[in-house]
Amino acid sequence: MNCAKRAFICIMIMAVIFAGSSVPAHAGQSAEPAPRLDAFFLGTKGETGDFFLDMLNTMMKEHITWRQSFHPEDPQAISDKNLAAPEATDARKKLKEVLSTLSTRLQKGSNPWFSPRYLGHMSADLLVPGVIGYMAAMLYNSNNVVYEGGPATTEMELEVGLQLARLLGYNPEKAWGNITSGGTNANFQALWYARNLKSFPLAVKAVMPELVKGLNEQRLLNMPVSQSLDLLDKVKNSPRYETILKHTVKGKGVDPKKLGKLLVPQSRHYSWDKAADVFGIGSENIIAVPVDKNYRMDIEALDRTIAGLVKKKIPILAVVSVLGSTEEGAVDETHRIVALREKYARRGIGFYYHIDAAYGGYVRSMFIDGSGAFMSLAQVRKTARERYHISEAATWPQASVYDAYKAVPEADSVTIDCHKLGYIPYPAGAVVFKDKRILAVQTFHAAYVQDLRAQAPVSIGHYVLEGSKPGAAAAAAWTAHQVLPLNMDGYGRLLGRTIKTANMLYEAMAKAEPFQAQNGRTYKFVPLVKPDLNMVDYVLKEVGNPGLEAMNKLNQAIYDECSYVSGDLMKKDFITSKTVFSPAEYGNTPLDFVRKCGLGDAEWEKTPSVLVLRSTIMTPYLADEAEFASYFDRLVEIMKKVITKVGG
Amino acid sequence: MNCAKRAFICIMIMAVIFAGSSVPAHAGQSAEPAPRLDAFFLGTKGETGDFFLDMLNTMMKEHITWRQSFHPEDPQAISDKNLAAPEATDARKKLKEVLSTLSTRLQKGSNPWFSPRYLGHMSADLLVPGVIGYMAAMLYNSNNVVYEGGPATTEMELEVGLQLARLLGYNPEKAWGNITSGGTNANFQALWYARNLKSFPLAVKAVMPELVKGLNEQRLLNMPVSQSLDLLDKVKNSPRYETILKHTVKGKGVDPKKLGKLLVPQSRHYSWDKAADVFGIGSENIIAVPVDKNYRMDIEALDRTIAGLVKKKIPILAVVSVLGSTEEGAVDETHRIVALREKYARRGIGFYYHIDAAYGGYVRSMFIDGSGAFMSLAQVRKTARERYHISEAATWPQASVYDAYKAVPEADSVTIDCHKLGYIPYPAGAVVFKDKRILAVQTFHAAYVQDLRAQAPVSIGHYVLEGSKPGAAAAAAWTAHQVLPLNMDGYGRLLGRTIKTANMLYEAMAKAEPFQAQNGRTYKFVPLVKPDLNMVDYVLKEVGNPGLEAMNKLNQAIYDECSYVSGDLMKKDFITSKTVFSPAEYGNTPLDFVRKCGLGDAEWEKTPSVLVLRSTIMTPYLADEAEFASYFDRLVEIMKKVITKVGG
Repeated sequence: MNCAKRAFICIMIMAVIFAGSSVPAHAGQSAEPAPRLDAFFLGTKGETGDFFLDMLNTMMKEHITWRQSFHPEDPQAISDKNLAAPEATDARKKLKEVLSTLSTRLQKGSNPWFSPRYLGHMSADLLVPGVIGYMAAMLYNSNNVVYEGGPATTEMELEVGLQLARLLGYNPEKAWGNITSGGTNANFQALWYARNLKSFPLAVKAVMPELVKGLNEQRLLNMPVSQSLDLLDKVKNSPRYETILKHTVKGKGVDPKKLGKLLVPQSRHYSWDKAADVFGIGSENIIAVPVDKNYRMDIEALDRTIAGLVKKKIPILAVVSVLGSTEEGAVDETHRIVALREKYARRGIGFYYHIDAAYGGYVRSMFIDGSGAFMSLAQVRKTARERYHISEAATWPQASVYDAYKAVPEADSVTIDCHKLGYIPYPAGAVVFKDKRILAVQTFHAAYVQDLRAQAPVSIGHYVLEGSKPGAAAAAAWTAHQVLPLNMDGYGRLLGRTIKTANMLYEAMAKAEPFQAQNGRTYKFVPLVKPDLNMVDYVLKEVGNPGLEAMNKLNQAIYDECSYVSGDLMKKDFITSKTVFSPAEYGNTPLDFVRKCGLGDAEWEKTPSVLVLRSTIMTPYLADEAEFASYFDRLVEIMKKVITKVGG
Repeated sequence: MNCAKRAFICIMIMAVIFAGSSVPAHAGQSAEPAPRLDAFFLGTKGETGDFFLDMLNTMMKEHITWRQSFHPEDPQAISDKNLAAPEATDARKKLKEVLSTLSTRLQKGSNPWFSPRYLGHMSADLLVPGVIGYMAAMLYNSNNVVYEGGPATTEMELEVGLQLARLLGYNPEKAWGNITSGGTNANFQALWYARNLKSFPLAVKAVMPELVKGLNEQRLLNMPVSQSLDLLDKVKNSPRYETILKHTVKGKGVDPKKLGKLLVPQSRHYSWDKAADVFGIGSENIIAVPVDKNYRMDIEALDRTIAGLVKKKIPILAVVSVLGSTEEGAVDETHRIVALREKYARRGIGFYYHIDAAYGGYVRSMFIDGSGAFMSLAQVRKTARERYHISEAATWPQASVYDAYKAVPEADSVTIDCHKLGYIPYPAGAVVFKDKRILAVQTFHAAYVQDLRAQAPVSIGHYVLEGSKPGAAAAAAWTAHQVLPLNMDGYGRLLGRTIKTANMLYEAMAKAEPFQAQNGRTYKFVPLVKPDLNMVDYVLKEVGNPGLEAMNKLNQAIYDECSYVSGDLMKKDFITSKTVFSPAEYGNTPLDFVRKCGLGDAEWEKTPSVLVLRSTIMTPYLADEAEFASYFDRLVEIMKKVITKVGG
């Protein structure tokens, strides 16, 4: 047994001791009752497995009872004789074999997200309520595209939509939300609405010019969203409404030059580039606004960009900002964008504003108290410290993050994924619109769907991109939201745990002494930026090695070793993800980090690319300080081993 | 007890007697071994419930064992102390209550698809292998957007893609298939590729004109798909490839006037209208080709349409045909469209050809023998008669249906939904492309996705619209395909059952004597057309009542009574769906049916709209002749009751 292995085992024993003791670092009246959350997860060893199986079997049996209760006088569909036949026995045997192969393949080729050793993509152990909710509803096989296809789950989807609307600060009386196949499709849906609405005033001018008289094309293309919606509302029951729609993009197709530019931060998810393609706008009509050194959209740059467009009389199709960027978990300053929008509105320039909070949306639950009120910064910080035990040093949230979350309800729409920080199974993205009058800009109808409109409460299919929508996804989100409300007492506690852990990881990395690997050389962690939410990007850097290329090579090798790339995921000590910052996407922003790593500017000139390891901290299992300390020590030991192995 | 009720009970007793006896109407060596299929369904009373729960629990326990096998030395994440704490007990109690509410709501507001009393939308009892495959994989929480997000399920998705390619007659060495969120998104993906490919030759001309010299814009916009793919292939590794892509729609946006017209049959799913909007083409660039009296695309009309466009030098973006139309289950004559495409290719006119076989795709398994060969018409008919016991009178398949299925592999792409006639849970549509070189026309990359390309086998996210893809959907389809191969021995048997039932229903309705309801008036069934596949549209018609409006009113009332509209689904004797044919969508086609109903042409002039009841026969539980006969008698009794109730 080598020295490293001995040390590792020693640490493991300590970890077990710590785990057993579980001394709360902060005691007090308002301390987070950990057991409540723990009960909702399956655990790294299936700790709550018995309860899970009990609930699952109950739901399945209730489903079978339901079947039996439908016309009990009907004969059974499958005869006992058939079930006893040798062919049926063979068939069951075959299915058993296939399922056994399935298990083997899944076990070999899946990531152990459930473990805190997995700190990579946006995945972690799932909420059992979401899993059972999904599985239970799956047997009822509903399709939320049309009310008739799933009355119960359609109603749950509408409820979830309004729960999310409340979470985002929208007035649920006026808002609309629906589940999508994911964040990409949620972003797509928002852009679809924004694009078609942009073309709406011109269509009105073509068909009913008396309604927009005195407004030239420039004014019509710059009409603020609320005015466009007023106009839409005014004409939607007109007999000429269909003709108007035919004059929008819906009928005429896109004229990319006319509709203007889509402004997104450099840190955007790649779905926005895909969206510009899909919706016929073209990537040349996307403007990537630079990010600042915190990887948040640079608002001054946004202001300059808008001013430049205004000067050239080019309209702005939409501005998109991000809450929780995919690569950095950065939070764009919503409030400052809202202020800009107001400033330009006074000059007659209107644009649609969408927030891509696919990742960060649920974090807003940490800002909302038990009565549903959005708390003050002081209250939020107090809760973060006293209830979630996020360290004082973290001063979480930063004022700018707080202000960003506070201003969310000013946006026209928001993407928020239930299958990310909502901890429920795929596929459950969502999009929420501030003003549901915008739905009128979409009217599709299949013959078999159309006629239901008058009778059914609502058929979601009219308004979404998907043509099939598993009702089970709505049931999963609904179930999870029932046990964990969307406020500081529910999801707030869960996300508080992860933000606490992320801050501990950031601080540990920032403060850790350089360590010596078996190769005799010395290494240190360098975290990218203080996390806005719960994502930590970082590198391992050889102390004294002046090369950026060498640093990239080291971290690529660490990634390879700590991912599926080098084989058997089940044998990994640690699993992470990575990302690469290059000028094409990030301009000169990474230079700041290059300097922080102690590398000269010339290195960035020579090697304009930085590869960082990327750890999304979604695990609910690393919030205890003592356990975390032991975990971090183990991580250092693992890195020593890994570096030695990859020949760093 | 009234007479009807007595009769109904009497019939029910007969039904029970019949069900017990289960005498096969056709005996013989090649008779379909019913027990094999039966073993894969849960049954109307949960007949196979014990086996289902056994398998499910096995898979769940294997998952828990997997968790335990990952670093067994790690401490458990949730302490026994926490699990025993009162807060945890409270949390579990709360979850139990919520799940109980969930069950209640699902049971109250779901359709009893599992029962043969449900003959409405495209839903029926699901294949247990698909359900367990989905549930098992869900716990492994993979996301097939990127290989790293789910190595095992990504590989299964690629396998499923190639299984479907083989089913459709494509060369799996050259084809590509992926799962989508549904048929709509599958159609979207195909149109996306078709549109961008259409703009590709012009982009090459703009950047590398030497490669297309001598070809004017007209020729470039009419380039046959195979030539465009050769061109794509030639330049995809060029350093100027990215520049070329920037000159396609992807970079420049759509120029709807330039790209030409999208030709779809009148019977198309509404997703095509949505697609024209989403992809920036505009509905004015859709041409709806009339359908013939069998609700199949009128190929002469298609020919005339194309000729007219050629004359006006307007390109054809794509031609879309349908295998199993949403409203009628009609099968467009693929082979004749292929012949047309060849005819026009000789004149220098090329277009993309897509088949929307979202519904009908899996039926091709009935045409494929155990060795994978596509059988002759005589063989298919023999199998249909002798193995599936489809009546001789049905002469299924009609030669035109056979030819249509045979020609499928000539199309450039096909939509085929696993969650329709694949009998697996939502969301699992799929799209298959004949020539995978077309993938090169899409290249998107997130920073964290891009770099994987070299190392990973494939990351599906590059090529699809979705940004999140539940790996569980792939596992479900994979599992189902393992136990039911995509040929006459597997899915063929299952679909054979449903086509048999559909033909029995059609024949029973066509031959049934008019019956007298309690109101003293006489009614009869009138089926729309002989089913190409397994969907039967029909009306109830009062004998001697000359009014179309009255007939529509009667069928609307029957629908209302036999659907969620009039309340509690669990109390329904029969559940169906409906559709409305109007000139806006179907031109004068419905007149043929109006006449068949014995109504004069003047009625159609006066009331240009026909409401028909629409029964998709997906149930696997109505294939026995004796049981069916009893079922149909009961259906007549139910209709007598319903008509009396609604005051027909």
